[in-house]
Amino acid sequence: MVKSAPDTLLVIRVPGWVDDVVGTFPGRFETDDARMALVIALSRHNVERGGGPFGAAVFAGPHLVAAAVNRVLDSGLSIAHAEIVALMRAQQSFGAFAAASAGAHSLVASAEPCCQCFGAIFWSGVDRLCCGATTADAEAAGFDEGPKPEDWVRVFEDRGVSVTRFVRRDEAREVIAEYARRGGRIY
Amino acid sequence: MVKSAPDTLLVIRVPGWVDDVVGTFPGRFETDDARMALVIALSRHNVERGGGPFGAAVFAGPHLVAAAVNRVLDSGLSIAHAEIVALMRAQQSFGAFAAASAGAHSLVASAEPCCQCFGAIFWSGVDRLCCGATTADAEAAGFDEGPKPEDWVRVFEDRGVSVTRFVRRDEAREVIAEYARRGGRIY
Repeated sequence: MVKSAPDTLLVIRVPGWVDDVVGTFPGRFETDDARMALVIALSRHNVERGGGPFGAAVFAGPHLVAAAVNRVLDSGLSIAHAEIVALMRAQQSFGAFAAASAGAHSLVASAEPCCQCFGAIFWSGVDRLCCGATTADAEAAGFDEGPKPEDWVRVFEDRGVSVTRFVRRDEAREVIAEYARRGGRIY
Repeated sequence: MVKSAPDTLLVIRVPGWVDDVVGTFPGRFETDDARMALVIALSRHNVERGGGPFGAAVFAGPHLVAAAVNRVLDSGLSIAHAEIVALMRAQQSFGAFAAASAGAHSLVASAEPCCQCFGAIFWSGVDRLCCGATTADAEAAGFDEGPKPEDWVRVFEDRGVSVTRFVRRDEAREVIAEYARRGGRIY
């Protein structure tokens, strides 16, 4: 077999404005409240630019490792939820798929994970998940969160991923609700 | 806020040899057996090149849409399971995240899905899943398939994704077992 076919690149683009938004925040994120404020701001900016109402970021203690937003509509890729984009970005910057486990890393997401992100988090190396809006909040706006276990928090905890919920929940939920009110595409 | 930060590209590379392997097969794949033969060949070639022992592809009837292999070790990205890479490649070629639903599309995978791929398949637009090696086969080699429901086949069927299992199972399992015997990295 002679090699002749070109490589194919599968690409998710994180737009520069994501880091511009990051730049409007202080350089350290000492609390879950501060981390979630960034993530919700990203979700709001994403809606203003025609994207889905979700943001996520990976932190190492107070340090931001990778910020992201939902890129499903722009990329045409169903994998491109904010959580997945944040985890890919963190791993790409570390250069190793489990490098996040090199220290205590948190995934902070503006909403609780759907079934896809639920499954992906186990392989990501993060040992902490922090969520804003709830599964019910997302579903109230019409989003399908899919088949994840009723006791998903316990499943995470049993595998060493601690879960903190309801951080700035009302504010995170409001971004999702506003997106639905505007007639944003539900997927 | 003035835009100043550059975009960040998150990239998974599908090496050209994948399509070279495809080129050694007939252009039509009429049966699950024929489709799985390709996917297992891809898994075997991936092992020979230092990758994980998993292949996957998306088909529209007898037509190949996108072929892929596990790219976790090379890309450093835990998302880059063969199934995810195949689905991303199919969606990128279609240019829309649910375009696979434009026709009857099958995801054919050399092993049953882990918890990550289980969750991702629901949003992918495929309406059929065909698997070779079983969850137990992968776990016997040391791979962790993660928390997916005991009744995962029924969960798929309930959401309109039909599941066919045990296609060329022994052959698919042997590639995984050989990888483990060679001391391949388990993740």
